Amino acid sequence: MRVIDKLEPTIFVIFGITGDLAQRKLLPAIYHLIKDGLLHEHTAIVGVSRRDITVAELLNQVELCVLEADNVCDETVLEKFRYKLRMIRFDPVKDDDYDTLLQTLNDIEDKHDMCMNRLYYLSIPPQVYEPVIRNFGTHHLNEGCQHKKAVSRLLVEKPFGYDLESAKDLIEITSRYFSEDQIFRIDHYLAKETVQNILVFRNHNPIFTSLWDHHHISAIDISLSEQLGVEGRAEFYDNVGALRDIVQNHLLQLLALVTMELPKSIHNSAALHQAKQALLASIPPLNMANANVTRAQYVGYREEVKNPRSTTETFVSLTLTIDSERWQSVPITIRTGKALKAKRSTIVITFASPAEPDTTNKLTFRIQPNEGIDVELIVKRPGFEDKIEIVQMDFSYRGVFSEPEHPDAYERVLVDAIKGDHSLFATSEEVLAAWHILQPILDAWERTDDDLLIYELGSDGPSASMPAAPVTDSQPT
Amino acid sequence: MRVIDKLEPTIFVIFGITGDLAQRKLLPAIYHLIKDGLLHEHTAIVGVSRRDITVAELLNQVELCVLEADNVCDETVLEKFRYKLRMIRFDPVKDDDYDTLLQTLNDIEDKHDMCMNRLYYLSIPPQVYEPVIRNFGTHHLNEGCQHKKAVSRLLVEKPFGYDLESAKDLIEITSRYFSEDQIFRIDHYLAKETVQNILVFRNHNPIFTSLWDHHHISAIDISLSEQLGVEGRAEFYDNVGALRDIVQNHLLQLLALVTMELPKSIHNSAALHQAKQALLASIPPLNMANANVTRAQYVGYREEVKNPRSTTETFVSLTLTIDSERWQSVPITIRTGKALKAKRSTIVITFASPAEPDTTNKLTFRIQPNEGIDVELIVKRPGFEDKIEIVQMDFSYRGVFSEPEHPDAYERVLVDAIKGDHSLFATSEEVLAAWHILQPILDAWERTDDDLLIYELGSDGPSASMPAAPVTDSQPT
Repeated sequence: MRVIDKLEPTIFVIFGITGDLAQRKLLPAIYHLIKDGLLHEHTAIVGVSRRDITVAELLNQVELCVLEADNVCDETVLEKFRYKLRMIRFDPVKDDDYDTLLQTLNDIEDKHDMCMNRLYYLSIPPQVYEPVIRNFGTHHLNEGCQHKKAVSRLLVEKPFGYDLESAKDLIEITSRYFSEDQIFRIDHYLAKETVQNILVFRNHNPIFTSLWDHHHISAIDISLSEQLGVEGRAEFYDNVGALRDIVQNHLLQLLALVTMELPKSIHNSAALHQAKQALLASIPPLNMANANVTRAQYVGYREEVKNPRSTTETFVSLTLTIDSERWQSVPITIRTGKALKAKRSTIVITFASPAEPDTTNKLTFRIQPNEGIDVELIVKRPGFEDKIEIVQMDFSYRGVFSEPEHPDAYERVLVDAIKGDHSLFATSEEVLAAWHILQPILDAWERTDDDLLIYELGSDGPSASMPAAPVTDSQPT
Repeated sequence: MRVIDKLEPTIFVIFGITGDLAQRKLLPAIYHLIKDGLLHEHTAIVGVSRRDITVAELLNQVELCVLEADNVCDETVLEKFRYKLRMIRFDPVKDDDYDTLLQTLNDIEDKHDMCMNRLYYLSIPPQVYEPVIRNFGTHHLNEGCQHKKAVSRLLVEKPFGYDLESAKDLIEITSRYFSEDQIFRIDHYLAKETVQNILVFRNHNPIFTSLWDHHHISAIDISLSEQLGVEGRAEFYDNVGALRDIVQNHLLQLLALVTMELPKSIHNSAALHQAKQALLASIPPLNMANANVTRAQYVGYREEVKNPRSTTETFVSLTLTIDSERWQSVPITIRTGKALKAKRSTIVITFASPAEPDTTNKLTFRIQPNEGIDVELIVKRPGFEDKIEIVQMDFSYRGVFSEPEHPDAYERVLVDAIKGDHSLFATSEEVLAAWHILQPILDAWERTDDDLLIYELGSDGPSASMPAAPVTDSQPT
C-alpha cells in the first residue's frame, strides 16, 4: 500500500452526517481510507444528527462505494466501517446535548484505553456555525483529552462568511476557542491532484519556471464551468451565488497557486501560505469599473429556486491584474457558471513575446475532467507551401497513472487534517484577503441589479445583449 | 491539389539513372510529382546510362510506387512518365558523347517549340564529378538555350569532396562553369518535413524562442542511428565512413539549423545561408583532444566489405561547443552509426536552469521514424506522498496530418531545384566550413587507428572496453 506517515489515533465527529456533502464525499472517502488501511487501528467515527438514525440505516442510504470498481462495496471493509461508527442524536445548536457528546468521546477513549485526537467535521448551515463553536468552547470540546497530548481539530466547509464583515466576525468568534493551528478550512479544490500539481509543475519544469512572468505570459484564464444547475442546493445557493460559492474560494485559490512567488520549499506549509497571502494582498479590490465584471442568471433559475425576484448570479466573469513586478498588466480572467454547455475546469496560460503578441503558445492545466496538461505548439504544415499549423501536445493522468493511485480530494483532506498539515487548507488571512478583493463588487450588486444578464441553459454563458427581466419593484423607477 | 508557384518548363537530365539513389528516391519522386500535376506540361526527362536500356525496361525495374497506397502504380501516371522520358546511352567521362546529349536537348526543345530550363542531376561516383563538369563546360551545357532566359542548373549528390582540400578543388572546378546560383547540393535531410520544421518551430513558438540559449539549455544531442549495415554500398562506404557520409553533411546541417541565429525571415534563402554559415564558422576545428571523439566499426563489417584491413568507422560520436555568446559551454553531442539497435534520428534539447542543473526538461524533435515532437514534463505523482514523475507530451505528424500531405524529401528537392530556390541546399561555404571543422579528426585518423573500437550488430554502439582488432601491419611497430 501507499507509504504515508503513520496517522494518529483519532475520533472523527461528523456534524451533518446525513447531509448531502457528508454522504456524497466524506463517508465514501472514509470507506476508502479504511479499505486502504490508512487509518490508525484506533480510529472511531461519531455521527451527529438531529434525526434518529441507526448506523445501518445511515450506511444503507449512502452510495459509499462510488469510487470503487463497479460501485460495489467490500463487505469486510463495510463491517469495519460499521464497527468504528456510532451515531448520536443531537441538536448542535442546543447547549445541553454537548454533555452527551463529551460523554460519548470519553466512552470511546475508555474503550480504546487511550487519549485520541478529535476531529470535528462541520457540514452544517453557516448560520449555525457561531452557536456550535460557542458550545464547543463552553463544553471544553476544543481541548484534547487532559492527560496526554491529544488535540482537538475543527474541519469546516465553506462558505467562510457571507462577506468581509461576517467573515471577520466568524473568524473572531472561532479564534476565541480554537487556535489557527486547530482550524482546517476545506477548499476541496486544493486537494485535487491536478491542483496540487500546479506548484509541483511550476517548481520542477525549467522550461516553464523561467517563463513565469509578464515578459513571457500575456494572459491567464481560470475557468470553472458546471453543466448542472442548483439541484438540491436551491435554498442555499439562492442566498449565495457564484461569486461567493466559487470565486471567493476555489478560483482565487487557484489564481494564487498559479501566480504566487514560489517559496523555497513548496512542502513548507507556512511558507506556502505566506506566499499565497502575499499574492492575494497584491490584487487591488475589484469593482464594476476596474474588473470588467459580468454577472448573469440562467433562464429558468427563478422557477427552480422558487424565487421569482431572485437576482442571484449563477454566472460571473471578471478580469483583474496583479499589482506586482512579476505580473504587471497581465490580464487574468476568472469565469464560472452553472447550467453551461460543458463541465470543465481549466487554467490556460497564454505565452507570447512582447515583440510578437499575436504569436502565442497556450499551456492548459485541465483540472477536470480528463485531468492533465496540454500545450499548443506551432509547427510547419507538411507540404510545399510554407504554412503553419497549431497542434496540441497532451498529457493525461489517466493515460499514465492507474486509477487507484488517485486519492479523491476528500481522502486527502481527511488525511491531512488528521496529520495536522495545513498546506491544502485556507488560512483566515487568505479567507479575509479574498473577501477584501470581492467586497466592492458585492456592494455594487447590493445597490442595483441593472447589470444582471440572462443566458440559455446549456449555452456558453451570457452575451451582453441579453439583460435579465428586471425585478421592477426592487429598482428605482 | 497543392497550390505552389507555377513551375517552369524543364528538362531533367539524370546521370546515373540506373543507380541505386535514382531508382530508390528520384524516379519515385518524379512519378509522384507527375501524379500530383505539379510539373509543367512541358517537362521532359532524359535518362543517361552507360548501359543500353529502354524506357520500359528502366521503369519496370524501379519500385516506382513505393510511396503510393499498396505500392500500386496508377497506369495513367505511368503512361505520362513513359511519354516524358527518353533514354540515351552515354559514358559521362567521354567527351564525344556530350554532342549527342546536346542534340537530344535541342530536339526536345524543338518538339516542345520552346526554350526549357535544364536540370542536370548527378548521381555518379564522386571520382568522375570533375571530368563530367569539365565536359558540361566545354560543350556549353552549362548555359540555357540561347534565345530566351532559360537556365541550366546542376543538382549534385553528396559527398561534396573527400576532405577539405578535395572539396576546395571540386568547388573551384565547378565554379569555372557554373555560378553558385546554378548549383544545388542536395542534402536530402534538409528537405525532410521534420527538418524544415526546426526553423518554423524555433520561429513561431514563444515558449521555446525565449529559451533558446545557454541560460536555459544545458545540452543538445543530435543522433542518427541506422539499423542497416552498408548493404549495396560496400565499396563506396568503405572509402568514406560515417564521419564523411553523415556527420559532414546531415548532422552538421541539423546542428546549424538548431543553433544558428534566426534570420529576420526564415524564408529568405540568402539570409538563412548567411546565418547557417556564421554558425558553422563559430565552431572551432575539432580534434581528438577537444571533441571526445569515439569511432568504431561493427563486428563483421570487414567481411561484409571484403576488406580485412579496413579501418573505416561505421560509428562516430563527438562532442563540441560553439564559440558564441548564445551557446557558450553548452555541450553538443553528435552521434551516428550503422547496424545499431534502432533506426532513429532525433534532436534532443535539454533544458535546465543553472541554479538546478539536475532538474531538466527534454524537447525531442523526432526526425524519423514516427515524425513528431515530444516534451518531457515533470508532474506530481498522484497519491499522498509528494513524489514527482517524468511524463511525456507528444505530437505526431501522422496523428494530425494525413499521409498524402507529406511530400517526400526528394520531391521537395526537385521542386525547389526547378524553382531555383536554394533554401534547402548546401552552399559551397557551408560545405567548406563543415570540412574545416572535421579536418583535424580526419588527419588524426590518418596517423593512427589505435582508437578504433568495435561494437556488436544490433547494439547501442561501442563501449570503450572493446578496441577493434588492430590492423597490425599498418601500424608502427
